[in-house]
Amino acid sequence: MTLIEQLRAIVGDANVLSGTDTAGWGEEWTGYYHWSPLAVVRPASTEEVSRVMQLASATGTAVVPVGGNTSLNGGTKAEGALMLSLARMNRVREVNPATQTVTAEAGVILQTLRDLADENGLVFPLTFGAQGSAMVGGFLSTNAGGSNVLRYGNTRMLCLGIEAVLADGRVMNTLSALRKDNTGYDLRDLLIGAEGTLGIITAAVFKLAPRPVAYATALMSMHSLGAALRLLNRIQAGTGGAVEAFEYMPHNYMLRLAELRPDLASPIAPGEVNIFVEAATTVPGEDPTERLQTLLAGAMEAGDVADAVIATSEQQRRRLWQMREAAAEITFTDPLVIDTDVALPLDRLQTFLDNMAARLGGIDPKAWTLVVAHLGDGNIHYSVYPGGPDEAVRAAIRAAIAEEAVMLGGTFSAEHGVGLSKLPEMAAHKDPVALQVMRSIKRALDPQGILNPGKVLPAGD
Amino acid sequence: MTLIEQLRAIVGDANVLSGTDTAGWGEEWTGYYHWSPLAVVRPASTEEVSRVMQLASATGTAVVPVGGNTSLNGGTKAEGALMLSLARMNRVREVNPATQTVTAEAGVILQTLRDLADENGLVFPLTFGAQGSAMVGGFLSTNAGGSNVLRYGNTRMLCLGIEAVLADGRVMNTLSALRKDNTGYDLRDLLIGAEGTLGIITAAVFKLAPRPVAYATALMSMHSLGAALRLLNRIQAGTGGAVEAFEYMPHNYMLRLAELRPDLASPIAPGEVNIFVEAATTVPGEDPTERLQTLLAGAMEAGDVADAVIATSEQQRRRLWQMREAAAEITFTDPLVIDTDVALPLDRLQTFLDNMAARLGGIDPKAWTLVVAHLGDGNIHYSVYPGGPDEAVRAAIRAAIAEEAVMLGGTFSAEHGVGLSKLPEMAAHKDPVALQVMRSIKRALDPQGILNPGKVLPAGD
Repeated sequence: MTLIEQLRAIVGDANVLSGTDTAGWGEEWTGYYHWSPLAVVRPASTEEVSRVMQLASATGTAVVPVGGNTSLNGGTKAEGALMLSLARMNRVREVNPATQTVTAEAGVILQTLRDLADENGLVFPLTFGAQGSAMVGGFLSTNAGGSNVLRYGNTRMLCLGIEAVLADGRVMNTLSALRKDNTGYDLRDLLIGAEGTLGIITAAVFKLAPRPVAYATALMSMHSLGAALRLLNRIQAGTGGAVEAFEYMPHNYMLRLAELRPDLASPIAPGEVNIFVEAATTVPGEDPTERLQTLLAGAMEAGDVADAVIATSEQQRRRLWQMREAAAEITFTDPLVIDTDVALPLDRLQTFLDNMAARLGGIDPKAWTLVVAHLGDGNIHYSVYPGGPDEAVRAAIRAAIAEEAVMLGGTFSAEHGVGLSKLPEMAAHKDPVALQVMRSIKRALDPQGILNPGKVLPAGD
Repeated sequence: MTLIEQLRAIVGDANVLSGTDTAGWGEEWTGYYHWSPLAVVRPASTEEVSRVMQLASATGTAVVPVGGNTSLNGGTKAEGALMLSLARMNRVREVNPATQTVTAEAGVILQTLRDLADENGLVFPLTFGAQGSAMVGGFLSTNAGGSNVLRYGNTRMLCLGIEAVLADGRVMNTLSALRKDNTGYDLRDLLIGAEGTLGIITAAVFKLAPRPVAYATALMSMHSLGAALRLLNRIQAGTGGAVEAFEYMPHNYMLRLAELRPDLASPIAPGEVNIFVEAATTVPGEDPTERLQTLLAGAMEAGDVADAVIATSEQQRRRLWQMREAAAEITFTDPLVIDTDVALPLDRLQTFLDNMAARLGGIDPKAWTLVVAHLGDGNIHYSVYPGGPDEAVRAAIRAAIAEEAVMLGGTFSAEHGVGLSKLPEMAAHKDPVALQVMRSIKRALDPQGILNPGKVLPAGD
């Protein structure tokens, strides 16, 4: 039997795509990466994933796991490789409101999880632009972040246990639903963020959180990032750390938004620095909006806030969220955009922006930028549109951004993962011993190197 | 040169103990484990640790890292091995109130970190009985828990980055101070909780938290665990999740406490179930005590609380804390005590206690128990005093506790680590594929098996 025939024997004829049937499976949604997969296989159960991996292992076939395919770094590029789609593993195995946990398979879409938590009077607090497509396996494998990390932590902090299939098909079941479990090495967090290079996550247990009973949501304009950070401290102190999101949209972001999404134009005159803030309470009877109003009035008196609008209905709240959530849509208008996700110590953000403006002019005078940031996390999406398609210039721009972030005590990758696009940064900036340890672990768990080959780990050593 | 001479050349004569000088280094503080180390070496810097490990690696010498030596599971037993004490690496490298982080070396004592945070208007929220002796390297290596996990998470969740020396002496520097950093595999969490079997943590960056401006602290008696869990939900909902500690002390714990520490006798008549609770606020002007009083009044009306006392001074608050903190002191009165740290889903705690009472009578009719629990985490310290020193009976008791916990969806180890004492439970209950993966990683990072040999991983494959 050919490999394709053997795959069909495992998952059924309809769930193996090859030849022209793989059209639509060879492109990243940004449009930048393109590839021709060997085939696409769509298992429906952990056991089928295991049998596919046994076959891949026996035949030395490269396997690229894929969920919603919303990667921004070439993480699912699968040239000549078998794409293993987890989309059919979309069962929610258990929701337990008493323990506030949910067990979901790798193909469950983030929005589905969020809706399910909501139906149970709880919240699954991971939220980012691609939540209508991104799947459990993908957002775990990239340790996704988003707009509520400030309050609830990133994906890693929301996950209690995982089930995964290893390179040779063995199934590891560590689906613990406990808050405390110290039985040996932390293999859960090792696979989370490994971008499918150490194993294929097939299911996970997540913590849910109590659903806030009321939100306070506002958009403010101000003159400087310093003022914005003072405001963050003011609101955190005044609400007991109840800030769920604190997002930065500079002036040119607001202009671009008004141009591409006039329906989402700003309800206030945009300043140099515009901040979207949301605070929440889980205490019945508390009014966070009143509290936020008082805090903003204080910030205005102190000269930190120029103008502000507070949402007075759920509809207004949703509209303010959409202004921020449209970031991906207004950023990825050009496949040549260089998107980054650096993070910096909070007091170095302005220095980073100033230094980059100066450096960028020297590298590519025609380049322009679009910035949006999870300010409370120090996490900036600094996107650059180069003047042309020259790969050397692109590389120089990427290198400058990473170097500048690292030099200021930051990181070149806060939440999007490494994939292919950040391999040069890994080679240049990752601690060399940590890289050696990563390679040792990769060899130990995937000695043939068949799991998502070429990703995360730069060549060499 | 002999090994001892070579060690002296690295750390200086005074910092290598051998022969009779190692007296005092051959016993766990519980008194249960005893050993004769080859020698004790006390490096003062990461570089010295690196050189010691290069030497150990070249000579195939087993190395047991040790901090405050407060392990409860034989984690520092070092029969014929070199004990590597991190106590002289006690420098706080940086405190940064702006970023709310602290960088501390492995030998810094937990209480020192707590005091330092306090001096900076912040809090380092890890707290447990041994905090006056336990050191950074040890509490990271066991992923320690304690009484504030409910609010702030365990050690893993407090740590942002680590520096570690590998088995062959290479130094891995991943001392990131960022909240978000996705640059490759999560090696930090792999070494945290590995009990020194994968590398020696020499320094770490920790998050600090805003210091509460006011606490509300109470001791309550009630009739059942069910009532206690209803009360927890009531206080969490009514304070917006501000419960810092929710600790369970049953009737016989209170009796034992009154007997051994009459100065800490209960200020209220103990019930079957006694709960220590502390809630806090970081919002200036808020009065959490008034809020707690109202919530307790409601719980009394509902029949859930029989009696309660609320601390009205810092002195009273400290005294209530001490009643709980005395647990280790009143538990480890007999080196034969079998201490455990199981965790269970919150709704299975009473079933566990009932089933264990029945099983224990069948195994050892003369055994008696002492229980104390981090109830909010489902984490029970179920200690058994066997009728005699018979090792087979001890093993049967341990096995029954682990089996009962796992059968009810819990774990045999929530926060103390595996060490030596829980190797049979690892062999019996850990997912076999996860065990294989752990062994693969151990071989990859420590091919000679010189780092804390015999711990965490049960023999066999």
